[in-house]
Amino acid sequence: MARRLGLQTLEISSGAYIIGNASMVGQKESEGPLGWCFDEVMKDDLIGEDTWEKAECRMFKETIELCAKKSGISMEEVQVVLGGDLLNQIITASFAARDLERPFLGLYNACSTMSESLAIGSLLIDGGGFENAVCATASHFCTAERQYRLPLEMGTQRTPTAQWTVTGAGATMLAKNSATPNPRVTMATVGKVIDLGITDANNMGAAMAPAAADTLVAHLRETGRTPADYDLIITGDLGTVGWKLMAELCKREQVELTKDVYVDCGAEMFSPQQDTHAGGSGCGCSASVLNGLYIDKLRKGELRRILFMATGALLSPTSSMQGESIPGISHAVCIEAP
Amino acid sequence: MARRLGLQTLEISSGAYIIGNASMVGQKESEGPLGWCFDEVMKDDLIGEDTWEKAECRMFKETIELCAKKSGISMEEVQVVLGGDLLNQIITASFAARDLERPFLGLYNACSTMSESLAIGSLLIDGGGFENAVCATASHFCTAERQYRLPLEMGTQRTPTAQWTVTGAGATMLAKNSATPNPRVTMATVGKVIDLGITDANNMGAAMAPAAADTLVAHLRETGRTPADYDLIITGDLGTVGWKLMAELCKREQVELTKDVYVDCGAEMFSPQQDTHAGGSGCGCSASVLNGLYIDKLRKGELRRILFMATGALLSPTSSMQGESIPGISHAVCIEAP
Repeated sequence: MARRLGLQTLEISSGAYIIGNASMVGQKESEGPLGWCFDEVMKDDLIGEDTWEKAECRMFKETIELCAKKSGISMEEVQVVLGGDLLNQIITASFAARDLERPFLGLYNACSTMSESLAIGSLLIDGGGFENAVCATASHFCTAERQYRLPLEMGTQRTPTAQWTVTGAGATMLAKNSATPNPRVTMATVGKVIDLGITDANNMGAAMAPAAADTLVAHLRETGRTPADYDLIITGDLGTVGWKLMAELCKREQVELTKDVYVDCGAEMFSPQQDTHAGGSGCGCSASVLNGLYIDKLRKGELRRILFMATGALLSPTSSMQGESIPGISHAVCIEAP
Repeated sequence: MARRLGLQTLEISSGAYIIGNASMVGQKESEGPLGWCFDEVMKDDLIGEDTWEKAECRMFKETIELCAKKSGISMEEVQVVLGGDLLNQIITASFAARDLERPFLGLYNACSTMSESLAIGSLLIDGGGFENAVCATASHFCTAERQYRLPLEMGTQRTPTAQWTVTGAGATMLAKNSATPNPRVTMATVGKVIDLGITDANNMGAAMAPAAADTLVAHLRETGRTPADYDLIITGDLGTVGWKLMAELCKREQVELTKDVYVDCGAEMFSPQQDTHAGGSGCGCSASVLNGLYIDKLRKGELRRILFMATGALLSPTSSMQGESIPGISHAVCIEAP
């Protein structure tokens, strides 16, 4: 039974084991500093499909299938698929779920969906009803650019604070039991929607950093922990601009985040030479980095305990055109080594 | 602890009490056969806001606030908001959650989101971590038409199978404990994504009926029940076309759905004189009817046990333009009288 530590934080008493994890990324991502850690690299943006959207859907589906394979279970044994993506009406996840033929719960918290799915999945498993749940998200540079910004064919110049939507997917298989030693999700902190009034849709790091800071401060307050209790605190896709802002906002709340303890998947994904400006974004960013890099580090014992906080900007082109500012959200899950 | 009855169905042993419910609809809905049952009626499509999207957001927020009030708890006591809507990036729910300042888990399964939120909410409460959860969805005729079809100003003619997106919202407050006798959610059946190849976006009833039939058949098989075990089986928004198809598809599986036991919120919402063609749709349709009509009937003992199955079409304009067919999904929750 989950135990409530505060308004936002729940301790997942028996824990949900991570029995498998998989990641897939695009070419550009494979050429970045983390390129070595991903399971699969797409040979191009279409991987044989006739649209980018269909390619994104296939990436989502194949990452889940690979995750099941690495978990040592068949797709037929998977009890529920939890996930979403950035496309309107989360068609990536929905159409993939059609092909996977598994019970499906669609989620949307923008780029925070990976940690949302892990929080809900862990709680559902802890609640006794599910033996396993696969949590997944994906994003694709080409589909996101055309939906949220401008058609790629226009070759529009990007602003210095702009981030590069990661072409990538990540999937995590949670399970009630584990035959071998595996990392466990032991806590979840559900985020609130926070909006400090940022209106520049090309500065998502700044829009999301306040939500990440709010969730982290709530998590530490409700658990009585400090950043020193974590080997790493990992935000999703604040990028280089949001990463600095996050540290600043936390400092105001007397939470010191040093470079040893605090990293951001968006800031880590690309090298400065790759010309992505403020780094990576998209829900495939944190999903692929968590499942490509950090879960394996926990499994090997290189990390003992991490706080994974995917970060989402809850805007739409319509809300921005109607003059709304950009609200953010961040859910956190604590994952511990075996 | 939830108990698994089959791949898709969970029994929620201790149950989640429905301690409050609220509904709000637009003018046209208030003039229909169910007009008398809703808590609030919007005086016009904008209710003082400058865009329809903002009006939809306000409707979502005010319905939740009313639900909390009717539940006898303050918004500050609400532990989590679970919900979504039909707009891109679920901005209705996200911006409402910003103003409500509560932990938020965004969901998207199109018009099936109301039963998705009740399924997840009940399981989370049963899992022990939450004392309460408010589940809500909304839709608005004007925002949905412009996003999914064509601008209203064009006055486009509608096809005979077209449905009318309901302007409405519904919210249900689930709680672990209840001081007074209240209905309880006692089972949840998580739907699969089903697609029989319908490609006409003006015939959503036909696209969703196979998913509803699939979920109902799975629910009956896994629980060992028959339709006679329910006072009512209620689908979300199949409309008059989908309602008939649903009965036909179930008949092929040896499940007889008579008019006494099977109703559809979309088919009930408007009278033939209101010229909506195949009836109501939108996630506010089943949400407002469940929360306006059926939960109160359960509370009064006029119904003993219902199966509520909101139904969603997981298309987007992009998927349709790329030649994809329309997958559907339906989640079911069993709700029982005190």
